[in-house]
Amino acid sequence: MVKELVAIALGGNMILKKGQPKTYEQQMENLRVATEVIVEIIKMGYGVILTHGNGPQVGNILVQQKSGVADGIPAQPLNICGAMSQGQIGFMVQTALEELLFDNGVLDKRVVAIITRVLVDSSDPAFKEPTKPIGPFYSEEEAIVLHKKTRDTYINDAGRGFRKVVPSPIPLEILEGKTIRRCVEEGDIVISVGGGGIPVARKNGKFEDVEAVIDKDRATEVLATQIDAEILMIITDVSNAYINFGKTDQKAIGKVTIEEMKKILDDGQFAKGSMKPKVGSAIRFIEKGGLLSIITSPENAIAALKDKAGTRLVK
Amino acid sequence: MVKELVAIALGGNMILKKGQPKTYEQQMENLRVATEVIVEIIKMGYGVILTHGNGPQVGNILVQQKSGVADGIPAQPLNICGAMSQGQIGFMVQTALEELLFDNGVLDKRVVAIITRVLVDSSDPAFKEPTKPIGPFYSEEEAIVLHKKTRDTYINDAGRGFRKVVPSPIPLEILEGKTIRRCVEEGDIVISVGGGGIPVARKNGKFEDVEAVIDKDRATEVLATQIDAEILMIITDVSNAYINFGKTDQKAIGKVTIEEMKKILDDGQFAKGSMKPKVGSAIRFIEKGGLLSIITSPENAIAALKDKAGTRLVK
Repeated sequence: MVKELVAIALGGNMILKKGQPKTYEQQMENLRVATEVIVEIIKMGYGVILTHGNGPQVGNILVQQKSGVADGIPAQPLNICGAMSQGQIGFMVQTALEELLFDNGVLDKRVVAIITRVLVDSSDPAFKEPTKPIGPFYSEEEAIVLHKKTRDTYINDAGRGFRKVVPSPIPLEILEGKTIRRCVEEGDIVISVGGGGIPVARKNGKFEDVEAVIDKDRATEVLATQIDAEILMIITDVSNAYINFGKTDQKAIGKVTIEEMKKILDDGQFAKGSMKPKVGSAIRFIEKGGLLSIITSPENAIAALKDKAGTRLVK
Repeated sequence: MVKELVAIALGGNMILKKGQPKTYEQQMENLRVATEVIVEIIKMGYGVILTHGNGPQVGNILVQQKSGVADGIPAQPLNICGAMSQGQIGFMVQTALEELLFDNGVLDKRVVAIITRVLVDSSDPAFKEPTKPIGPFYSEEEAIVLHKKTRDTYINDAGRGFRKVVPSPIPLEILEGKTIRRCVEEGDIVISVGGGGIPVARKNGKFEDVEAVIDKDRATEVLATQIDAEILMIITDVSNAYINFGKTDQKAIGKVTIEEMKKILDDGQFAKGSMKPKVGSAIRFIEKGGLLSIITSPENAIAALKDKAGTRLVK
């Protein structure tokens, strides 16, 4: 039996960093490093649910969808590309993690990857205001033609070219939650909620196709709450959330109550689309009954669990 | 609780037939039909593990891997493409099946898709003799250049062009077997072993990358045996295995013992790469302790379970 359940969200850039070759070998190399801390946490006796981003991978799959059309293969929609990336990353994480577990003499654990869907509300206001850029870059002329044809929204993405944007609705429920909980209770290490989960809406028992991207930290919080995990850990590339981040007087936030953290959040301290949604998820997890939310880097994750590093939110 | 466990192998051509548009919509339309019989079996009280082929889907993904290279995305290897197809098909089957369960008033079942790996022996003689054609077609000239560069084997595939061939080693163990068994015991409908599973070899705790395709019926038999399923059901496009198939005196094989079936098999009655491996898997399942192996069409599956149609092998 496991002592406490920890849901760990791993950033997609831990699997493939900007500028690296987009090969299988490179991703496996990155994963062999990224999973080291996970193995340490498993050895400490925690039940582990590992979630992960899929930005670089689904981006590549979307480009391939576009490239394949000329060779007679119709592009599959975004939800299918997300499902493909869950298979791809799930298998790679599984491989890296089981090898490392073996090296560490942990022979009684299985790592399973579960295809995960996340329920959203098709009347979520986010659907009226798409914000998440996805897939290939286009010229302005191409984007105008595509917009006229499909009604999809295109934006100039940081001067790098035009990209389609899709909504990022609020995740409501992880449809595979019960199965995930049972697997981790029985000692499996579970990989799930890849890329924030495949979004689906439901109406009278029918699923509606949804073209959207779910924030993976927020979806991980929903899963962690739903299955009564004790700890939510968001692993990112900084050791802490900061007050006055990037300024000369920046100050790492250590252990704080959610009341204190809400004040810092309301003070506008966190970057939109970066630290802000992570802090939001960390707060919500505690509000809904979680014991501890951690935001930290891989290097500080173990110390954070020992209450010695990272940003730690408690009631 | 479920009464008996049945492992059902669904042909990949039930999800996408030759000549059909290779779209998401077409595949969902096919799946809404193909899953009807599965729902009937669930309603009869059986615990169901559903496995499926991935030939058309992984074929399309392989073409996209080739197409994407010109746009800067390196081709991912076959094992990753197989993992992607498990995500893709798992999600589609899940969607079709849960909608149909809802329509049938079955509200207490969840359908979960598990990424599945299958262990093979890297010294399997099949690795010396690749036989399974995969991926895009090439001209003879292109195939010669590719062969010289990669040492991969290319064959003329039925006059349609040259294709790479990969080995089809024997599946030894489904690595996710215990988790699959537990999920189905608890009432989940489990989708697994997609495309015969992602083949992996293992040496001193390390996984070796394997470029191979596993026969999905044989992998389903290995799973069914491993998790002590009572029934193995191979769903294909004919109602029965036949003696003198295609001749004027052809005779459908109904209920037979494995001893009788072995004689028919030894008599050379079954087509290699088609009915022969299905019959082989059906026999092995009973030899290793299974109660009943069925080979039949979707239309006859329910009657076959009631001992009234299809080819049924017993001890």
